[in-house]
Amino acid sequence: MVVVIRYDVARLSWPARVPVGELPPAQYRMAVRIYYEDTDAGGIVYHANYLRYFERARTDWLRQLGAVHSDLLARDRVGFVVRDLALDYLAPARLDDRLTVDVRLLEARRASMRLAQVASDETSGQTRVTALLRVAAIDPTTGRAVGFPAWLTEKLTR
Amino acid sequence: MVVVIRYDVARLSWPARVPVGELPPAQYRMAVRIYYEDTDAGGIVYHANYLRYFERARTDWLRQLGAVHSDLLARDRVGFVVRDLALDYLAPARLDDRLTVDVRLLEARRASMRLAQVASDETSGQTRVTALLRVAAIDPTTGRAVGFPAWLTEKLTR
Amino acid sequence: MVVVIRYDVARLSWPARVPVGELPPAQYRMAVRIYYEDTDAGGIVYHANYLRYFERARTDWLRQLGAVHSDLLARDRVGFVVRDLALDYLAPARLDDRLTVDVRLLEARRASMRLAQVASDETSGQTRVTALLRVAAIDPTTGRAVGFPAWLTEKLTR
Amino acid sequence: MVVVIRYDVARLSWPARVPVGELPPAQYRMAVRIYYEDTDAGGIVYHANYLRYFERARTDWLRQLGAVHSDLLARDRVGFVVRDLALDYLAPARLDDRLTVDVRLLEARRASMRLAQVASDETSGQTRVTALLRVAAIDPTTGRAVGFPAWLTEKLTR
Repeated sequence: MVVVIRYDVARLSWPARVPVGELPPAQYRMAVRIYYEDTDAGGIVYHANYLRYFERARTDWLRQLGAVHSDLLARDRVGFVVRDLALDYLAPARLDDRLTVDVRLLEARRASMRLAQVASDETSGQTRVTALLRVAAIDPTTGRAVGFPAWLTEKLTR
Repeated sequence: MVVVIRYDVARLSWPARVPVGELPPAQYRMAVRIYYEDTDAGGIVYHANYLRYFERARTDWLRQLGAVHSDLLARDRVGFVVRDLALDYLAPARLDDRLTVDVRLLEARRASMRLAQVASDETSGQTRVTALLRVAAIDPTTGRAVGFPAWLTEKLTR
Repeated sequence: MVVVIRYDVARLSWPARVPVGELPPAQYRMAVRIYYEDTDAGGIVYHANYLRYFERARTDWLRQLGAVHSDLLARDRVGFVVRDLALDYLAPARLDDRLTVDVRLLEARRASMRLAQVASDETSGQTRVTALLRVAAIDPTTGRAVGFPAWLTEKLTR
Repeated sequence: MVVVIRYDVARLSWPARVPVGELPPAQYRMAVRIYYEDTDAGGIVYHANYLRYFERARTDWLRQLGAVHSDLLARDRVGFVVRDLALDYLAPARLDDRLTVDVRLLEARRASMRLAQVASDETSGQTRVTALLRVAAIDPTTGRAVGFPAWLTEKLTR
C-alpha cells in the first residue's frame, strides 16, 4: 500500500471518532428532511450542509430556553458564533431521507459552551455525522467576545 | 467565573489550534470574494461557507493535477468525499473581503488523503479560518470506499 | 426625477404583480423557520433562498401525492426541473420569522405544470414573496423532456 | 395530450422568453466555475444558484463603478435588494462547467434599476439561463425605499 507522509500528522491533534454511546443524552432533537437543495452531483448531502442542520437544532434548542437570536442581536448586541468544530462523516444521507439532529451540552462557561451533536437516520437510527463544537458570544459590531446574558448562563448551568 | 462541566470533555480528542506556521507550504492558492450570499444577519461570513471555499480550492488544485470531478464520476465511478474535518475560526470575514484559500497536502494514501487548508485575508495576510481534513474516494452508487485512480496516487506521492 | 431608459423595456414581457387574491386556493401549505443560514449581511432573507422554500413545499406536496423525487430518479429516470419562474418580493423576512409557504396548481400538462406559490408571514398573514413557475420532467442523464409518470398526471388533472 | 387548466393562466402576465439577441450589450462579464456545492442530486446546477451567480456579477459591476456594498451599508445606510425577477432556464449547467455571467443595464431610475442578465456556457457560448430583474435601494433597518447615492445614479445614467 502506497503511503507517503509529507508531514508528521502526529504533531496535529487530529480529531478522533466521537464515542456517541458515551455522550450525555440529548437536550433537544429535531427532524430534518433532505431536499434537492441539500444534495450534490454525487447524489449525497453536500458535506457543508450538516453545519446548517446542526445550527438549526442549536437555534431551536436555545429558543426553547428563551434565547432568540434576533432578540439577542437587537436588544443585547450579542451574536452567537462557532469558535471551532470537528465533524466526523460516518455514512452519507441522500435525497428524501429524514435525519434526527440533536444537541448535547457538554460544558457551559460565561462566554462559551461546548456541545456535541449527532445526525442520525430517522428510520434506522444509524449515525450519519457527529459534531463537536464550541460556540461563543460576540458583539457583532466589534467582533469582541462578550459573555452570554447572565440569565442564559444560569439556565445552561442549572 | 461560572463553569459547569456536564461531561468530562477531556475524554474527547478535541481538536487543538492548528500551528499554521509549522504546516508544509501550500500546493495551491486561490482568491475568494465575499458576496451577500456568503454572509448572515450577524454581518459576517456564515460559518458553513468556509467549507465551500475550501472545497473550491481542493477542486481547482486537483484539476491542475488532471483530476476533474465530473470525469472521475462519469468515467471512473469515483466520487470524492470528506471523511472528517476540524475547523478553527480565528477571526470573521465580512462582506466584500477577499480571502486567500490554500491547499496543503499532509499525507497521501491509496484511498484517502489528509490536508490542511488556511483561509486568510488577502490584504492583511491575517489567518481567518484553518481546516484539517481527510478526503476519501468512494463509489457514488454504493458509497463503498475505492482507491483513487492509480495515476493520481502516483502524482500525489511523487 | 432622473429616468434613463437605455432599452425599450416595453419590448419585454416583464412579469407584473401576481394578484394573490385571485389565485386558486392552496393545495398544500408548510411552515418555514428563518435561521442564520437564510439571512445575509443586510439583515434579511437572501433573495435566492425563497426558491429553496418554494421547492421544499412542492416536494412535500408531491410526496403527499405519492411522487417521491428519489424514487422517480432511481425507478423512472425522471427528474423535475424548473423551466421558468417569476418572483415578486413584496416585503423582506428576517431572522427567526416563520413563513407559511404554499403550492397552488394552475395548470397540469403531460410533461409540465404551472404553479403559483406564496410565502407569507405566519403571524401577520402578510405576503412576503410570490412566485409563478413552470416545472417540467426530464431524463436527468440526457436532459431531454419526458412526460410525468401517467399516474401522477392522472392525479394532478383529477 | 392531457391538459387540464384549473386557472386562467392568461390572466397572469407570465414572463415570456427573453430575446437575448435583441438585448443591449453587456456592461460587465465574469466567469463562474461550477463546483460540487452548486449541483444537486439530479446532476445539474440547482436552480436557485443562478441567482447567486447573477448577484456576484452585479456586485462586481457595481464595484467597478465605485459602489461597494459594505461601504454603502456602513456609510450611506443603503442596501440593494431585488424587487422582482424572471428567470428562464434554457439548458442545464453541470459540474465543472464554466459559465460566463453578464450584466446589461436596461433602465436607471432614482431608486431602482432594471437589468437583464445572461448566463452562457463559456466554451460553446450557448445560453443557459436568462434573467430580467429590478433592483432597488432600501434603508436596511427600516426596509423603506431610498434613492441610490446621487453619484451612482449619475454614473448609471451617463
